[in-house]
Amino acid sequence: MSNQATISKGAATRDLIIDHAYAIACRAGLEGVSIGDLAHAVGMSKSGVFAHFGSREDLQLAVLEYAGRRFGEAVLMPAVRKPRGLARLRAIVDGWFDWVRENQHGCLIMGAVSEYDSRPGALHDAVVALIQRWRTDTARAAQMAIDAGELHADADPQQLSFEIFGIALALHQDTRLFDPKQARSRAEHAVQRLLAAHSR
Amino acid sequence: MSNQATISKGAATRDLIIDHAYAIACRAGLEGVSIGDLAHAVGMSKSGVFAHFGSREDLQLAVLEYAGRRFGEAVLMPAVRKPRGLARLRAIVDGWFDWVRENQHGCLIMGAVSEYDSRPGALHDAVVALIQRWRTDTARAAQMAIDAGELHADADPQQLSFEIFGIALALHQDTRLFDPKQARSRAEHAVQRLLAAHSR
Repeated sequence: MSNQATISKGAATRDLIIDHAYAIACRAGLEGVSIGDLAHAVGMSKSGVFAHFGSREDLQLAVLEYAGRRFGEAVLMPAVRKPRGLARLRAIVDGWFDWVRENQHGCLIMGAVSEYDSRPGALHDAVVALIQRWRTDTARAAQMAIDAGELHADADPQQLSFEIFGIALALHQDTRLFDPKQARSRAEHAVQRLLAAHSR
Repeated sequence: MSNQATISKGAATRDLIIDHAYAIACRAGLEGVSIGDLAHAVGMSKSGVFAHFGSREDLQLAVLEYAGRRFGEAVLMPAVRKPRGLARLRAIVDGWFDWVRENQHGCLIMGAVSEYDSRPGALHDAVVALIQRWRTDTARAAQMAIDAGELHADADPQQLSFEIFGIALALHQDTRLFDPKQARSRAEHAVQRLLAAHSR
């Protein structure tokens, strides 16, 4: 094979490993990813898997990054096609609520928060950065709705982002423990009330 | 020893085991409780620990029940001494927020939700029952505030309970990932706005 073909094949194998690891981690958490099980699932040796990732932690970090990218593509990308303002903020919320429904048997990111929130290290830092970025993206969309004159000028974008986050967390938990449809309806009511309270 | 003394000693040993297991599970989750480590910590043999609990799962269920009792004693008990109505609902929220602060390095109950929400079995059912009970207790306090004429008659107690839960979840997450004081301030603002919106 040419060098180019070797690199492409290497990248494809790496993607395949991450894809399998992602599916495992959605249900069992990033700590549930075993290199042995993963090697078996993709038909490679353990050393073959390690050749693509220096360590189990590097693999976990790559899977977490992949999860963040998937979330961004599913939720943020469609929203940024909407006009700046309430339409975009609503699209973020709708996409997020749909994500919760579609990942009701396991959201890797929410699982990772619970796994690493009190365990210092590279994975903890990556989780903090991921949630921080998402909170900032949501606050930015709220700020645009303020700038567009659709939300009150004295609304606090970070506070709105915090409260939207809380509603999404309650939706996530209720979807998994109780009735998903009722959870969605309650989350919709909560967001509508929140945005209406700050609308001009 | 008399039979009575034997029973008391047995109960005291059982309490000691649960207390140690609770401390471990707050940080490592209920799945992080190993009978071997626990036996070592309390200075017993593994079979000695098993004599008090039929199985590891029975021990985990007992620890979860203990966590629920601790939460109830810390949050609900002081609140029921307040008059029915907004004062009691606020006391529940305040106690809950204090609980989050005091357990910022690990809340066994929140950890258990994440561990068992998609894993069918006795622990899953116990987690669902625990959260359901707490949601109902909160909704009941909201209903009393409606009955007392302090919240609007058309306020939905279950919806309020859902939204208060969301704020507490966001507080829990922010306390662990970001700045605990800022998180508390945001949660306070959110609850004040929520209750003010429904106040008469």
